[in-house]
Amino acid sequence: PRTEEKMTENGVSSRAKVLTIDTMNPTVKKVEYAVRGPIVQRAVELERELSQGVKKPFAEVIKANIGDAHAMGQQPITFFRQVLALCSYPELLNDSTFPEDAKSRARRILQSCGGNSLGSYSASQGIESVRQDVARYIERRDGGVPCAPDNIYLTTGASDGIVTMLKLLVCGEGATRTGVMISIPQYPLYSAALAELGAVQVNYYLNEEKCWSLDISELQRSVDEARTHCNPRALCIINPGNPTGQVQSRQCIEDVIRFAAKERLFLMADEVYQDNVYADGCQFHSFKKVLFEMGPEYSSTVELASFHSTSKCYMGECGFRGGYMEIINMDNEVKAQLTKLVSVRLCPPVPGQALMDLVVNPPQPGEPSYDNFIKERTATLSVLAEKAKLTEQVLNTVEGIRCNPVQGAMYSFPRISIPEKAVKEANGQQPDMFYCMRLLEETGICLVPGSGFGQKDGTYHFRMTILPPTDKLKILLDKVKEFHHKFTQKYS
Amino acid sequence: PRTEEKMTENGVSSRAKVLTIDTMNPTVKKVEYAVRGPIVQRAVELERELSQGVKKPFAEVIKANIGDAHAMGQQPITFFRQVLALCSYPELLNDSTFPEDAKSRARRILQSCGGNSLGSYSASQGIESVRQDVARYIERRDGGVPCAPDNIYLTTGASDGIVTMLKLLVCGEGATRTGVMISIPQYPLYSAALAELGAVQVNYYLNEEKCWSLDISELQRSVDEARTHCNPRALCIINPGNPTGQVQSRQCIEDVIRFAAKERLFLMADEVYQDNVYADGCQFHSFKKVLFEMGPEYSSTVELASFHSTSKCYMGECGFRGGYMEIINMDNEVKAQLTKLVSVRLCPPVPGQALMDLVVNPPQPGEPSYDNFIKERTATLSVLAEKAKLTEQVLNTVEGIRCNPVQGAMYSFPRISIPEKAVKEANGQQPDMFYCMRLLEETGICLVPGSGFGQKDGTYHFRMTILPPTDKLKILLDKVKEFHHKFTQKYS
Repeated sequence: PRTEEKMTENGVSSRAKVLTIDTMNPTVKKVEYAVRGPIVQRAVELERELSQGVKKPFAEVIKANIGDAHAMGQQPITFFRQVLALCSYPELLNDSTFPEDAKSRARRILQSCGGNSLGSYSASQGIESVRQDVARYIERRDGGVPCAPDNIYLTTGASDGIVTMLKLLVCGEGATRTGVMISIPQYPLYSAALAELGAVQVNYYLNEEKCWSLDISELQRSVDEARTHCNPRALCIINPGNPTGQVQSRQCIEDVIRFAAKERLFLMADEVYQDNVYADGCQFHSFKKVLFEMGPEYSSTVELASFHSTSKCYMGECGFRGGYMEIINMDNEVKAQLTKLVSVRLCPPVPGQALMDLVVNPPQPGEPSYDNFIKERTATLSVLAEKAKLTEQVLNTVEGIRCNPVQGAMYSFPRISIPEKAVKEANGQQPDMFYCMRLLEETGICLVPGSGFGQKDGTYHFRMTILPPTDKLKILLDKVKEFHHKFTQKYS
Repeated sequence: PRTEEKMTENGVSSRAKVLTIDTMNPTVKKVEYAVRGPIVQRAVELERELSQGVKKPFAEVIKANIGDAHAMGQQPITFFRQVLALCSYPELLNDSTFPEDAKSRARRILQSCGGNSLGSYSASQGIESVRQDVARYIERRDGGVPCAPDNIYLTTGASDGIVTMLKLLVCGEGATRTGVMISIPQYPLYSAALAELGAVQVNYYLNEEKCWSLDISELQRSVDEARTHCNPRALCIINPGNPTGQVQSRQCIEDVIRFAAKERLFLMADEVYQDNVYADGCQFHSFKKVLFEMGPEYSSTVELASFHSTSKCYMGECGFRGGYMEIINMDNEVKAQLTKLVSVRLCPPVPGQALMDLVVNPPQPGEPSYDNFIKERTATLSVLAEKAKLTEQVLNTVEGIRCNPVQGAMYSFPRISIPEKAVKEANGQQPDMFYCMRLLEETGICLVPGSGFGQKDGTYHFRMTILPPTDKLKILLDKVKEFHHKFTQKYS
């Protein structure tokens, strides 16, 4: 009686599926992730059609939807790849064409691996020598503020660390359910993870008029409102900002820390774009450094997790899924629980750990690879800075598009005017989704609608990476310009 | 008023932490993972003490707690590592010392990567050409049963796939909460994931007297009992077995499939040890193959997910975190949800995907690397077969230890007699934990107590990998023998 059977025409009984959309995990259904959503699926289809010779109004699809540097032609850092090759196939340690500093780095990594192999599991928290190198990197970066390797957890990209931290924080039911404050616009990993964990998403809005800066008064409004229906316990900050490209001032960070202390919020600082700062007068300040400069009242009490990754900055090694998180002032019992939790997944990918090690411990002055490393890093970062400026400039020449300066990170998030008639035409679809879908079909350009990141009601945006090669980026910007004109005319 | 402040002696106000053991996620607290639990933490401490010159009754710690082949001295497959080096540093494609088949394989993998770089994100489901290769491998393995690349999801090791599938299945509350049937003894990833997801763990016991085989009557007892308090929806099988080392007969698999169909259970087949079969008369049969041989009544209805990995078999590449799952008869809407869910984490590590590709598409007859590949694979597997036999034989010479044949996988799970006096001495600790901890302190051998995997009440076991090099394995087995004698005498 447990099976609902019916006979089909060929006599085979057909059972209702065990797992259907109605009987699956309801929290998974609530998850949304626009960066790889329907518009990207359509872009992949279009690519396939083009390769099959189907006629389109464009010759190629340009994907500016995701911060995927190498896919857009950015070259990997030679030294990093040499060391990875040496670690993968240690026979190459006898090859005289590899520089000595790459070899000594590879030997050091292999010595930290069980059986001297990248193929061994590491400690669940990550290879100890890598965590030591990460700690020293953080100390240098933060002007000597101490960092304990024991507070470093290597992760499978930053996403893994962020989800793990959120997982620890979620508890309670109904009005005591954990709320997590996230910026709007946000990187949709946050909303997706909160939906899956069943936590309450508490929005605070960045100020588009002031270059997407963060106002403490808005944080206050947000947390006060949230307290009427949930228990806000964590505050997430992305700096430099994704998708907004803003870089927070030191003062702003200090104010945020003071706010977190006053309101008793666990701080999560997503700092994966820490080397991606382009605008004059802007500088990256880590939350850790500012926290410690504020003195023991804060540095010994405010709980902070900060996240970094091998995927962004000048290296752009997304595919290796390397990353780390540093935890500050975490309760010792909770830390033991965190260590236990990460042990269930055994360990982060070891090649990604090796790469993270190279990022925090690159060639030093005097070493054979130093000059070339600096040359490659500088070239990549200065091209990115040029493209950040170019993107802002061209988009701001378009009537109906208004783009804040891309101070950092890899994205612009311009505001676009969508005529009332187009909003109606969208017919229930988000108007900026309708806009981006039309753009894709007509030009082959793949952007992500602002609605996937969150935005003030009645405003529309898209996120566009600045990663395409300069010549292609120019074409892309011109096409967007032309499309926007035509779109506006059509629906006016 | 929200902060509970008090002044400490140095005048710094101390706030209660936001995140404490009492306010953290309660489901995370319930997670346990013995394979990396307290006994392993103690082993790491002992290693550190030894390296600092602290005197111990042993000269080294031998970790036989985890299936970590390379850490135990197993050598990687040369061809795999050559291709990985070529993919990491494509300059090497000009190096004449690399064989042509390794180069052509590397070129093919790189062509499937964005910007020809392992550093690009792949599709969230995994690189398409790798999924095609996986599908062809499964078809060959299963005697031609068709496999669609679209049903393949590449994963971050098998663990990731298993947790993802369980996540989809969990719903309901109270008596309708999803129950998941797992074997006892089990691999503790399952219990850990179910605890974290808040699903109901439904135990079925393997029959130790019959070489850890699976009895359908026990499945029936288990599911009937479970239905009184939850909604059993999935049945997990590990074959070859971890920690038990048993290999299921074709008949047993057919019976399990029939049972799953009758009771409407989603089948999850953990088949990561599919190449690790040693005993005469034993053979690996995939659930997929048997399902399709049973005809359309089953093959078109029973929902199945099967899991594989780069971490075990002859390759033992745990650190790369490569793996795949194949899903059969999954509802299309659920599949779309699965694809969406995996997209949030962007993609599995690309080097692990490349390695998975090599495992399913190794050198072919006639290719330059073929002979050496076969030689290396055969050597590794035959040494494992020897060690499986050796382990069983030596352990069975010990009075008070009874060890089933290690038919497959990489573990023995012998039953040990623990004297009543030792059980009392354990003083609330699990008696086999007490036993293993004494073993570690006295001999430096690190095993995992059976209580970490589950066992019938009043029985005691440990799990021991057969991976140490033969000479070390012999020493280890002798030490266990000696320890068991002394332990038994002491507490008799």
